[in-house]
Amino acid sequence: MATETMQVNMLSAEDLLKNWQGHRRLTRKTIEAFPEDKLFAFSVGGMRPFSEMAIEFIKMAVPIVDGVATGKWVEFGNSGPKLETKAEILRVWDAQTAELDEKFWKIPPHRFSAVDKAFGQWEMSGLAMIQYAIDNEIHHRGQGYVYLRALGIEPPHFWERD
Amino acid sequence: MATETMQVNMLSAEDLLKNWQGHRRLTRKTIEAFPEDKLFAFSVGGMRPFSEMAIEFIKMAVPIVDGVATGKWVEFGNSGPKLETKAEILRVWDAQTAELDEKFWKIPPHRFSAVDKAFGQWEMSGLAMIQYAIDNEIHHRGQGYVYLRALGIEPPHFWERD
Repeated sequence: MATETMQVNMLSAEDLLKNWQGHRRLTRKTIEAFPEDKLFAFSVGGMRPFSEMAIEFIKMAVPIVDGVATGKWVEFGNSGPKLETKAEILRVWDAQTAELDEKFWKIPPHRFSAVDKAFGQWEMSGLAMIQYAIDNEIHHRGQGYVYLRALGIEPPHFWERD
Repeated sequence: MATETMQVNMLSAEDLLKNWQGHRRLTRKTIEAFPEDKLFAFSVGGMRPFSEMAIEFIKMAVPIVDGVATGKWVEFGNSGPKLETKAEILRVWDAQTAELDEKFWKIPPHRFSAVDKAFGQWEMSGLAMIQYAIDNEIHHRGQGYVYLRALGIEPPHFWERD
């Protein structure tokens, strides 16, 4: 890589949130596409069912925004209700959509570049942590697409984020 | 979403390239993890084999950076050698790694926010087009992970980008 520094600051917090919420809308459609029983029981290659991946996204999203905003990283392990139906997952999903839209604006600008040890283990900037959450969601959602195809179900179009 | 504008310009071109190259290193490891024959023939649910996804990434990467840099979108369809072995794919992959490191720095800063109709069909900013290429790679690489698991092969760790 070149040693010169090219600082082209070009992504706003608004762009980042918009990109994330677009991906979250696509993930919501992916959850919806699963038949109830398959969401909780079907997988390929001994992997987790898609419900567990969706719950992982839920455990990361708002807690990460809270952590970036405040510097307090509250372990996302064991709080909240058990999510045992598709309807329960989607209800919490939609609540988080609203919560993210509200909380994202409260992140103090300097916190996006501040480096924390998130949840006591991931040392990176606030921006990198949020991008990691988005990337992790894209990665596992892609796996959900394979489950759907293996079930003979057409997944939502990857480029549709509305 | 709040109507106020929060312009926190926080991502540099350097960050973006670094994130992309980290993902590309992980994708390279994923290609390597496939046995030669499975790379070209194995899939789940009637999907494409992982070789075709890898070639899609190759067809997007440098042509997109060229398009963002110059405003000229050269269809990435039919040029270049046929890639019919793992070694050929990895050779072109490594050549693109060097090419991206070189070409990324030549993107004029204003081109990241300029909106083009990329390849005559995708209307978005240069930044959004590059992010789309990264997201697309993460998405399909996640699918490659399922193929590997179905083959009884452990994929590389998602968080390892070195």
